[in-house]
Amino acid sequence: MTEPSRKKWEDDYPRWFDWILEEAEVYDYGRYPVKGMGVWRPYGFQLRRRIVELMRRLLDSRGHEEVLFPLLIPEALLRRESEHVKGFEAEVYWVTHGGRKPLDVKLALRPTSETSITYMETFWIKSYKQLPKKYYQVVSIFRYETKATRPMIRLREVTTFKEAHTVHDSFEDAERQVLEAIEIYKEFFDSLGIPYLVSRRPEWDKFAGALYTIAFDTIMPDGRKLQIGTVHNLGQNFTRAFDFRIQLSDESLDHPWQTSYGISDRVVATVVSIHGDDRGMVLPPSIAPVQVVIVPIPAKSEDDIRLVSSLVHQVRDALENAGIRVRVDDRDDMRPGAKFYYWELRGVPVRIEIGAREARESRLTLVRRDTLEKRSVPAENVVVEVRRLFDEIYEALKRRAWSYLRSRVLRTNDLEEAREWVRQRRGVVEVPWCGREECALRLEEEFEADAMGTPWPLERADGERCVVCGRPAITWMRYSKSY
Amino acid sequence: MTEPSRKKWEDDYPRWFDWILEEAEVYDYGRYPVKGMGVWRPYGFQLRRRIVELMRRLLDSRGHEEVLFPLLIPEALLRRESEHVKGFEAEVYWVTHGGRKPLDVKLALRPTSETSITYMETFWIKSYKQLPKKYYQVVSIFRYETKATRPMIRLREVTTFKEAHTVHDSFEDAERQVLEAIEIYKEFFDSLGIPYLVSRRPEWDKFAGALYTIAFDTIMPDGRKLQIGTVHNLGQNFTRAFDFRIQLSDESLDHPWQTSYGISDRVVATVVSIHGDDRGMVLPPSIAPVQVVIVPIPAKSEDDIRLVSSLVHQVRDALENAGIRVRVDDRDDMRPGAKFYYWELRGVPVRIEIGAREARESRLTLVRRDTLEKRSVPAENVVVEVRRLFDEIYEALKRRAWSYLRSRVLRTNDLEEAREWVRQRRGVVEVPWCGREECALRLEEEFEADAMGTPWPLERADGERCVVCGRPAITWMRYSKSY
Repeated sequence: MTEPSRKKWEDDYPRWFDWILEEAEVYDYGRYPVKGMGVWRPYGFQLRRRIVELMRRLLDSRGHEEVLFPLLIPEALLRRESEHVKGFEAEVYWVTHGGRKPLDVKLALRPTSETSITYMETFWIKSYKQLPKKYYQVVSIFRYETKATRPMIRLREVTTFKEAHTVHDSFEDAERQVLEAIEIYKEFFDSLGIPYLVSRRPEWDKFAGALYTIAFDTIMPDGRKLQIGTVHNLGQNFTRAFDFRIQLSDESLDHPWQTSYGISDRVVATVVSIHGDDRGMVLPPSIAPVQVVIVPIPAKSEDDIRLVSSLVHQVRDALENAGIRVRVDDRDDMRPGAKFYYWELRGVPVRIEIGAREARESRLTLVRRDTLEKRSVPAENVVVEVRRLFDEIYEALKRRAWSYLRSRVLRTNDLEEAREWVRQRRGVVEVPWCGREECALRLEEEFEADAMGTPWPLERADGERCVVCGRPAITWMRYSKSY
Repeated sequence: MTEPSRKKWEDDYPRWFDWILEEAEVYDYGRYPVKGMGVWRPYGFQLRRRIVELMRRLLDSRGHEEVLFPLLIPEALLRRESEHVKGFEAEVYWVTHGGRKPLDVKLALRPTSETSITYMETFWIKSYKQLPKKYYQVVSIFRYETKATRPMIRLREVTTFKEAHTVHDSFEDAERQVLEAIEIYKEFFDSLGIPYLVSRRPEWDKFAGALYTIAFDTIMPDGRKLQIGTVHNLGQNFTRAFDFRIQLSDESLDHPWQTSYGISDRVVATVVSIHGDDRGMVLPPSIAPVQVVIVPIPAKSEDDIRLVSSLVHQVRDALENAGIRVRVDDRDDMRPGAKFYYWELRGVPVRIEIGAREARESRLTLVRRDTLEKRSVPAENVVVEVRRLFDEIYEALKRRAWSYLRSRVLRTNDLEEAREWVRQRRGVVEVPWCGREECALRLEEEFEADAMGTPWPLERADGERCVVCGRPAITWMRYSKSY
């Protein structure tokens, strides 16, 4: 069995990505007349929707409650937590006019919602008895990016921002929540077959207003890392800034503890990219808008035409009744080959070909999208066989993606080798590190790359020495070119 | 059987509405520090979500495709259709700054999306073969309202705007789409038990940029009408303004025809309001976040406690397995009476009480929220009995709401009677009308009320005379105080 080529996919990934978004009608980018803002087209919208629903199920099942806060945040609210506003103010969009009149108060398009949510929590939460409290919302956020924008990856309107915000009566409970959030994200990315590295971001790159940030990164086909999820322990920074106090079990009053964690459109970009090949997308069956496409092969005799048509309907009904998302492509102005191309591009996991021979024998030809391998099965087994294929495809995608990621991570104490790995965009390098900021920053310059942080959970680098200063290393620091 | 009182509900509706939103934790309004913007709290969010999902199913089943367009519309795009911008420019919010820098181009927060969607359609649609095309999105829209704001009813951020936009190759096909949209909205409001009047809005009150507007209005408990849905035939106004042309079947090029239709947060406000009573909300079972609450009644003996607990779990499992949204209220710091109050307030359609007597006899007490009528049924029949109650409640709510609306509509040719009806906020009045704008506007002053338009489909007023000028009437004009 030969797998489809991944040559163009890997050698020319940025062009491949633009091509697939346009060609598969996922996301229209570059034509909308505001930089950094794009349009979700119907097929892309369905893909996005299923990914969001997967996240909703994970959060709901762990006691998170969905809410919806206003988009506009008054300037004074955004300025309440000083580190936070410093981190965001250079990239906030401001609404200054309503109709023809200037507004009394400037209103920010939310860059994230810690400030508005904490403000409202002061009215809602009075006692430890109400805690822990876990809210989330799925909204658009806005950042006036000065870097080059990329569809879904670096946008000025991020249309799919899932932000969770939690409140706790102790530091320990907030720490426990950070672990739960990491577990949720692992389960989420695992369900999508997305491989990841979990890092504790360096102090100088944590979320503005957080005690610390744990980040999920993946490596894209061009060797650059993409941040796909973050989890922040906010400590009491925001609750202090808003003077938000609750009654504790010992009847004292104190500021509660918070965490927040988010994912974005980048998850969709990753699903599209990471599993792709030169023919287009390869979607994990669980989130594919169309899971099975049936392509009838034109028959010649009247009898055969009837037989094919009858088997097509029988198979479609069987799959639909089993809750499988199936489409029959019976367009009569298109040849089967063009249809194969059309649905391969769109990443439909399983194609079923039904021609005269299949119809007469009551058998089907199943073609899996990831390997293009064909399999002939009795029509009566179609539901079982398709489900089995879904499992196999998911496992194969996940395995391939993880093996790709691992091949892109180099752990070395050879400075020269490390530098070349990063500079040539081979992926992520991990080098022994003494823990001092100046050494880490020095390597950022040396590598012309970003320090991603240290492995989470922490991995010791016993016996190793910092590649910069030669002091004993306490762990590894990760570097890569970034999106 | 005695129904709960609707006295406070009717006599003091505006206060009742504020009270229920706060007390049932539906929507937090007035505390968020931007006027006209509120927060969907978890219970309200679930209610809103089920209403939106109902609309999605109706649209999807009729070939509509969901999309998502950017929030920000550049000034030049918004100005392309001249009537449209005239209608909206007084109430558009403008983004003028990104970070600390003024933007080159002012960006509007979308007040509606005809302009941005038509602009992108020019790239996507080239031929009549692609038509009809039906898009929709569910998004926030922004209007800098100068009138007094009301939660969910008159907002500056409308967080639940479902806007559909369609494209057609002929005027006739656009007309057919208007009818389909009206059918969809009827089915939607009928599913929610919401009564409505369908009117063709007068020329001077149609959507800015439309040929004409068909509106759905309901009458709130205080006798004021609330617009809850609109359908617009846009003609070629936007396609001409954007020079959007397609190839027709005769190979000629022409501007296609469009319609658009929308509903908003007001649907949620109506569901909450129209079915309510002095105890709180009464939700139609199909969209209730909790459909059945089980309240165990504390038992005394160990045996009884065991029996009650076992029956509670058995009933919960049976309902859950049947796909019914059930909650067991086993809070031990709250008496049953307080729990009844809590869930009645929140409109849960059916309460099941299980005490020692019920447990010993393996029977249940079912209480329906709308009438508070009690019914004792064998535990083994719970799924069938609950489903039957759901149907009965839905039918009763719908019947009561329609009979309320009908009692609030007066058709008369007695000017005096008409004026009093409207001025005293009894509801909607219909008077014979000659069809001339000046007569209709004169009555707006006389009644201190808005002309809602003429009945759709058109109803003749044969033999009647215009109450203003005495000329022969061609139809009826509706008036009412409005939200």
